[in-house]
Amino acid sequence: MRASRMDLLRNPFKGVAIDVRGRAACYSHDWAAGLRSGFRILAPTMYIFFASALPVIAFGEQLSSATDGILTTVETLASTAICGIIHSILGGQPLMIVGVAEPTIIMYTYLYNFAKKQQGLGAQLYLAWAGWVCIWTAIMLFLLAMFNASSVITRFTRVAGELFGMLITVLFLQEAIKGIVREFSVPEDADSSSLIYQFQWLYVNGILGVIFSIGLLYTALRTRRARSWLYGVGWLRSFIADYGVPFMVIVWTALSYTLPSKVPSGVPRRLLSPLPWESSSLGHWTVAKDLFSVPPTYIFAAILPALMVAGLYFFDHSVASQLAQQKEYNLKKPSAYHYDILVLGFMVLLCGLIGIPPSNGVLPQSPMHTRSLAVLKRQLLSKKMVDTAKESIGKSATSLEIYGKMQEVFVDMDSEQNTDSIDKELKNFKDAVLKECDEEGKPAREFDPRKHIEAHLPVRVNEQRLSNLLQSVLVGGCVGAMPVIRMIPTSVLWGYFAYMAIDSLPGNQFWERIQLLFIAESRRYKVLEGPHASFVESVPPKIITIFTIFQFFYLLICFGITWIPIAGILFPVPFFLMILIRQYLLPKFFDPITLRELDAAEYEELDGVPHEHTLEDEVSEAGSCLSRPDAEILDELTTNRGELKHRSSSLREERQVQVPTNAVQPSL
Amino acid sequence: MRASRMDLLRNPFKGVAIDVRGRAACYSHDWAAGLRSGFRILAPTMYIFFASALPVIAFGEQLSSATDGILTTVETLASTAICGIIHSILGGQPLMIVGVAEPTIIMYTYLYNFAKKQQGLGAQLYLAWAGWVCIWTAIMLFLLAMFNASSVITRFTRVAGELFGMLITVLFLQEAIKGIVREFSVPEDADSSSLIYQFQWLYVNGILGVIFSIGLLYTALRTRRARSWLYGVGWLRSFIADYGVPFMVIVWTALSYTLPSKVPSGVPRRLLSPLPWESSSLGHWTVAKDLFSVPPTYIFAAILPALMVAGLYFFDHSVASQLAQQKEYNLKKPSAYHYDILVLGFMVLLCGLIGIPPSNGVLPQSPMHTRSLAVLKRQLLSKKMVDTAKESIGKSATSLEIYGKMQEVFVDMDSEQNTDSIDKELKNFKDAVLKECDEEGKPAREFDPRKHIEAHLPVRVNEQRLSNLLQSVLVGGCVGAMPVIRMIPTSVLWGYFAYMAIDSLPGNQFWERIQLLFIAESRRYKVLEGPHASFVESVPPKIITIFTIFQFFYLLICFGITWIPIAGILFPVPFFLMILIRQYLLPKFFDPITLRELDAAEYEELDGVPHEHTLEDEVSEAGSCLSRPDAEILDELTTNRGELKHRSSSLREERQVQVPTNAVQPSL
Repeated sequence: MRASRMDLLRNPFKGVAIDVRGRAACYSHDWAAGLRSGFRILAPTMYIFFASALPVIAFGEQLSSATDGILTTVETLASTAICGIIHSILGGQPLMIVGVAEPTIIMYTYLYNFAKKQQGLGAQLYLAWAGWVCIWTAIMLFLLAMFNASSVITRFTRVAGELFGMLITVLFLQEAIKGIVREFSVPEDADSSSLIYQFQWLYVNGILGVIFSIGLLYTALRTRRARSWLYGVGWLRSFIADYGVPFMVIVWTALSYTLPSKVPSGVPRRLLSPLPWESSSLGHWTVAKDLFSVPPTYIFAAILPALMVAGLYFFDHSVASQLAQQKEYNLKKPSAYHYDILVLGFMVLLCGLIGIPPSNGVLPQSPMHTRSLAVLKRQLLSKKMVDTAKESIGKSATSLEIYGKMQEVFVDMDSEQNTDSIDKELKNFKDAVLKECDEEGKPAREFDPRKHIEAHLPVRVNEQRLSNLLQSVLVGGCVGAMPVIRMIPTSVLWGYFAYMAIDSLPGNQFWERIQLLFIAESRRYKVLEGPHASFVESVPPKIITIFTIFQFFYLLICFGITWIPIAGILFPVPFFLMILIRQYLLPKFFDPITLRELDAAEYEELDGVPHEHTLEDEVSEAGSCLSRPDAEILDELTTNRGELKHRSSSLREERQVQVPTNAVQPSL
Repeated sequence: MRASRMDLLRNPFKGVAIDVRGRAACYSHDWAAGLRSGFRILAPTMYIFFASALPVIAFGEQLSSATDGILTTVETLASTAICGIIHSILGGQPLMIVGVAEPTIIMYTYLYNFAKKQQGLGAQLYLAWAGWVCIWTAIMLFLLAMFNASSVITRFTRVAGELFGMLITVLFLQEAIKGIVREFSVPEDADSSSLIYQFQWLYVNGILGVIFSIGLLYTALRTRRARSWLYGVGWLRSFIADYGVPFMVIVWTALSYTLPSKVPSGVPRRLLSPLPWESSSLGHWTVAKDLFSVPPTYIFAAILPALMVAGLYFFDHSVASQLAQQKEYNLKKPSAYHYDILVLGFMVLLCGLIGIPPSNGVLPQSPMHTRSLAVLKRQLLSKKMVDTAKESIGKSATSLEIYGKMQEVFVDMDSEQNTDSIDKELKNFKDAVLKECDEEGKPAREFDPRKHIEAHLPVRVNEQRLSNLLQSVLVGGCVGAMPVIRMIPTSVLWGYFAYMAIDSLPGNQFWERIQLLFIAESRRYKVLEGPHASFVESVPPKIITIFTIFQFFYLLICFGITWIPIAGILFPVPFFLMILIRQYLLPKFFDPITLRELDAAEYEELDGVPHEHTLEDEVSEAGSCLSRPDAEILDELTTNRGELKHRSSSLREERQVQVPTNAVQPSL
């Protein structure tokens, strides 16, 4: 391994060169495939646009209150749009979505808190100094790209990723709680003699804030899983699942305008961002001219934060790209990790020079983007193949001929040249089609190609650049829509932060293990009954507990560091350390199989196994209070009116013919 | 049937006589069994006390605002306590719990609205006139008992019961909504110049009301199912499930005292009931002396409402008693439907004469009571049988001897004399015990009698009067605790009304059918996968739909009637009519098997059947948007971070031994 690493160091730009060659070969197809999809490309575009725009607006508000309004939603939207357009046109992997993310906000907050207290900098030179941080970061990213550092991304294992994810979750929750608490007090720079800052209206503002934020949180979480709702028609459930969260932001914003007219305006508080065409928004675009007003000491001091930012971005950008390219999506075009780090360096440099916070690859939007394009591709493939099959049936072709035509369409729409693997992938489909013929090889009369296509079509993703470009342009359009965005109550955004925190938890195995700690041993069968991560079965509970407690304390340390006033900027250090700990220290305490399960590269899930409920299982749990668990079974079998249910395992046939002895008979 | 009915009419008091003979035979055992349980009887006592006291307090507040404070929580608590004590000592079926219920509140509201507008009555003579209604009601109940009317309770089918249940649900919801809306306005009799009735504080009061009521509703609903929670230890979950709702009332009341001190007192509003020892509470006890101040016309006019009340009480009391004696509880002591109607008549008379609203048998407390006593009995039986078995093992008895001793204990503690049926009931238990012996008939060394007892003990209920008496006394004690009860914010009670409404829905088949209307045909399999009422399988969907829509419109009519100012008092008429419609009209439109399923005497539930998910099933639903349902499956298989899960059906053994190729190896 060391040899190959030296090899990479000796071949600067080797990785970038390979990436560029790979992506250049399919560059024109990237655009052609997007254009060929026609208007249907708007579905994934809108989906990703709403998924990216909302967090960027929320982060803008967070940044605005952290930097006393120097950077606002206007800047976060602008950065996301500019970097998104650059990445979608010049970037390597167009499935990855970029945007201003929480680590950037935290870093920019630390930078501001440091800068405003320094005599040589102050709030005036904050953006210029942050520009230097960006310049150093860009240099480091260039170096990382040059020396092929992306080859180490296999070291970014689940443990480090989930630790980082949990920290972001905790910080989101903290932001939500701090936000709601702030609703009860007078903002720092406000005129406290104003009517809306008198106690009764402050208090109204606060409790309305509680209602709006909890209301948004609850309704957003409910819509998230709408697709599996029992009620309602399919398209409505899909719509709610895809657009429910932005829709709820609109609903709660609308509700905030239904307050009685006697409530003074200013209650509830709304976003503070200036309009992009107001003078206060215009200053930072020319920040480049102030760069050399920064004293040299500070220019070099900017190297330390730059190290942190470069490390974080390298990590985040690579992981986002990786999750957008999971192997289950059967992507046909090559990856471009090295080259994308280079492009990221350019974007960071540009953002630094125009005084806006930089963007990097974001989660979960990147894999969401790939997923929505897989759905789109399926629609396109299916439609064209069905049309072809129908045409062939019209010409009374044999099943084999029909299959041949459909395969032709598939190969044509697939960007890959290797027909061998396609033959393998389409084998089930072929078998299903060929089975449906009579002796002459003609398809049976009720032959429906659609059925087989739906059942056997392999996953394909519409790999193109158009949806990414369009969604970035739409985010840019939001800057023009600031007057509308400013109608959102701040408390709705606090609820949205809480939503982002809670929504990020399912699927995080660290979190799932924390929950396991609170499940009594005797009730584990309940976990095993449902689908569950494979480690639950393969690793002994005691080992899981030890490992989880270690992770938990490590998380506490990471969270503690963010509270240290200026050294807090070092908060990414524990994550870099974690990668080393994982590699050198953990194998000394846990055997490799355990580590492989608890730090699995892929999320492996096992189906639930039905559990035989006997009273005995339950007794061991209840301890002294012997008969309590009966009460649980009774609970299940009792209606809320107190009626007992009679449970049988299937409908007894005889009852259907039996004369109903119990029915009320007319007595006439 | 007609012959037997005539027979009953010709034998007045026949039913009552049988009931009295039956219950008298076990009367002393009723007390002995209660006393023998020792302190353990306190568990079911406290459980039922909390379950009955809260609604009575809520109804008291409702009645207080409906009667301008003439009747309050003091009177509803007093009635529940007095009638409870009478019923537990003199009543027939001591498992039934009595209390002031919603129909009584509605009736007393109509009576008040009528009386206060009549010149001859007015608010002064309201209680005296209500006394006359009670007198007439009592007479009718006596007649019903005398002529053995309870023999028709088999006619009170599910359709009528659930219709009534749904109306109560709707009225509870209406009460909750009206209550919350009222929090935003000045109460009728209040001084509107007071500080707390200025707009800003009215508004604070209103939105705090929204928070408290929704908070109580949500937390109470969550605690309801605590027993099946995944987390936490058994005893805690049981405690939360049993006492969660009163506990949440206490929590939210405590929270209402944590408001900032700048909020004026009176915000939020709290219960208005006078203290029982204040003069305003004392007037009604002597209402009997005003009885003949009521003009004769009104005395006779009271017959009409009395007809309604008598019908309602007869219906409610019988159904509550019936559900407390479901056959699955294997009750050993006889029922006493006829006699209990007679006792109810006396209680109504007494309440009328002392000017308090009467009580009748309540749901769901009555079956809850039986259930908690079944748990208690199991604990007692189990403890004693284990002790006996251990003693026998000490004397190195054979398995057969041990079983014999245990059976002796069981028979001894059972109130039934018929040992034949006990032999049958204990057969499984006996087999299990006898299986556990070596060649000499001695039990194996690891023989644990507890195991078999838990697994095979038949259901027995500790049928006694003590828990009912004690809980009634405790309810009476609440009258003394009025200063504490008055600390509850009214908005918490509105939340509690909403809780009672929503909590009553599961298990109501009418409600379950309404939900079915909103499930697309293609997603029915989701219902069939879980446990479901048997009609879902046995009745064609179209018939279910027609029947449900008929019920729904009938419900609308019933609800509409309650809105008619004075004729609203006739609101029970549609229920009486429903019994006739069910008997004579419905059989003309639905075949008997369908009716038997949709109006089943028992709640029959079928186990879920796993459904093979194929894409084809889902396609038919999605219609034009072919690939959407894939998205649902994808949703399930994607973590919230966008990572795909790999689902396998069991843990592959080979992985355990395989060298982890994917694990990170130290490169040293």
